[in-house]
Amino acid sequence: MTKFDSIAIVGVGLIGGSIGQALRKRELAREVVGVGRSARSLEQSRKLGAIDRGTTSLAEGVSQAELVVVCTPVELIVQHVQEAAAASPKKAVLTDAGSTKAQLVAELDATVNAADGGPRFVGSHPIAGDHRSGCEFARPDLFENRVTVVTPTSDSTASAVERVNEFWQGLGSRVVEMLPEAHDRALAITSHLPHLVASSLAGLTPGEYLPLTGGGWQDTTRVAAGDPELWRQILVTNRTAVLEAIERFDISLAALRTALWKGDDERLLELLQEAKQVRDALGS
Amino acid sequence: MTKFDSIAIVGVGLIGGSIGQALRKRELAREVVGVGRSARSLEQSRKLGAIDRGTTSLAEGVSQAELVVVCTPVELIVQHVQEAAAASPKKAVLTDAGSTKAQLVAELDATVNAADGGPRFVGSHPIAGDHRSGCEFARPDLFENRVTVVTPTSDSTASAVERVNEFWQGLGSRVVEMLPEAHDRALAITSHLPHLVASSLAGLTPGEYLPLTGGGWQDTTRVAAGDPELWRQILVTNRTAVLEAIERFDISLAALRTALWKGDDERLLELLQEAKQVRDALGS
Repeated sequence: MTKFDSIAIVGVGLIGGSIGQALRKRELAREVVGVGRSARSLEQSRKLGAIDRGTTSLAEGVSQAELVVVCTPVELIVQHVQEAAAASPKKAVLTDAGSTKAQLVAELDATVNAADGGPRFVGSHPIAGDHRSGCEFARPDLFENRVTVVTPTSDSTASAVERVNEFWQGLGSRVVEMLPEAHDRALAITSHLPHLVASSLAGLTPGEYLPLTGGGWQDTTRVAAGDPELWRQILVTNRTAVLEAIERFDISLAALRTALWKGDDERLLELLQEAKQVRDALGS
Repeated sequence: MTKFDSIAIVGVGLIGGSIGQALRKRELAREVVGVGRSARSLEQSRKLGAIDRGTTSLAEGVSQAELVVVCTPVELIVQHVQEAAAASPKKAVLTDAGSTKAQLVAELDATVNAADGGPRFVGSHPIAGDHRSGCEFARPDLFENRVTVVTPTSDSTASAVERVNEFWQGLGSRVVEMLPEAHDRALAITSHLPHLVASSLAGLTPGEYLPLTGGGWQDTTRVAAGDPELWRQILVTNRTAVLEAIERFDISLAALRTALWKGDDERLLELLQEAKQVRDALGS
């Protein structure tokens, strides 16, 4: 595994903190620098083993970085990558960990990657996480055996893509390359739609029914406990694909409803069997 | 805790097996008799510590029972309780573990409980389980700190209700009494709707997207791996309440969709926050 010199993590929360812990545990970087909003939370991140040192100045934090990983909420990523591009060494490679890709990659291709001879950006999305936020929930094994989607475009340089791939593989992740738009369509189905469905279910459940919930309700609604503002940003930056995913869901639920309403037991069973087959293909 | 004499369990699967293991571990009954379809699976249940002895004859299995618990699939419960009523001692108390109540309780009130001087039936539903079926997944602690709904009606005798309550409490469960119809309306929201939603989500997900799923999809779809035939029976025996629950879900999802479509970020955030509040009230 290729080692890295200095790596800067901008935003040391659950994802950034887990990256830092993994880098330090696996000794992949000479130094891990955390960039955060407060000296106090950076000190906590240091104590949690996520970073070697912290700074509240993005420009200072990335000034010697070979690789910068921006792990801030998705609506802030463009700005933070642009700031990092302006302050990091010319040979630096920049990536992110945002849950949606098309919008931000297009903006960064048009700005950072359009500039001559400066740092290069390639988008990433590690499909790993937790419904809880914050560095206190970080885990060095968060990316092990999980997929990270890397989203190169025609504006990406091969060397930057390779370096970003090496980075995620170094954390134990399996890298899948996809176009940003294809990533967003897939994740609308595999992540954003489940969140909306979980929120719908939780939202309609009267409080007095909660003692009557079992494992089914608890599993099905778990992600609804995720940070609402982070999820709002994810949903609005993938609006079109999410609305399409909702349409597909409506059709899927309507098929079950129609079979139940008509008393078409054979069809109802068939639909439940098809769903089980998909679910079983993944494992518990 | 009052001890029981002989308890017969009709259907020694996940629920029946867990009841048997709990009874034996807690030494609540003089004897636990299992009634099943095959001598071979009964022998396995005995080895798994779920029963003291087994028989494929329902009539023989319940002939000395003080309490009979019918744990077969919901569409078979009426028939099995009626058979048990005909073959068990006159003072026997009969209950079940079915996931829907109104339909079967009405049928058993009109038959078993309408007969003079025979065994008395009171419906039960332990809200505990697993998406996996079979005695091999049974656990003696399955009912500990879980709610069991007991559904007495005007046809129930107070002594039978009390005995059934003592039984579930003996297994570590908290008993909540509800009318069968109220139970079914609540469970349509807290269990049957989540199952349909999970199945819809799993059913629409293309196989090639499965590597791109994370914890959110996995949690939200987990129950879709449940036994399709068992779930078909649950859904069709609670048709009206389930169809109403789907309507409520449609409204809930439509609110999120409209906010996203309109770009009403404030409303979108508010809906996600409300859902999180409900989910957080339960704990993870």
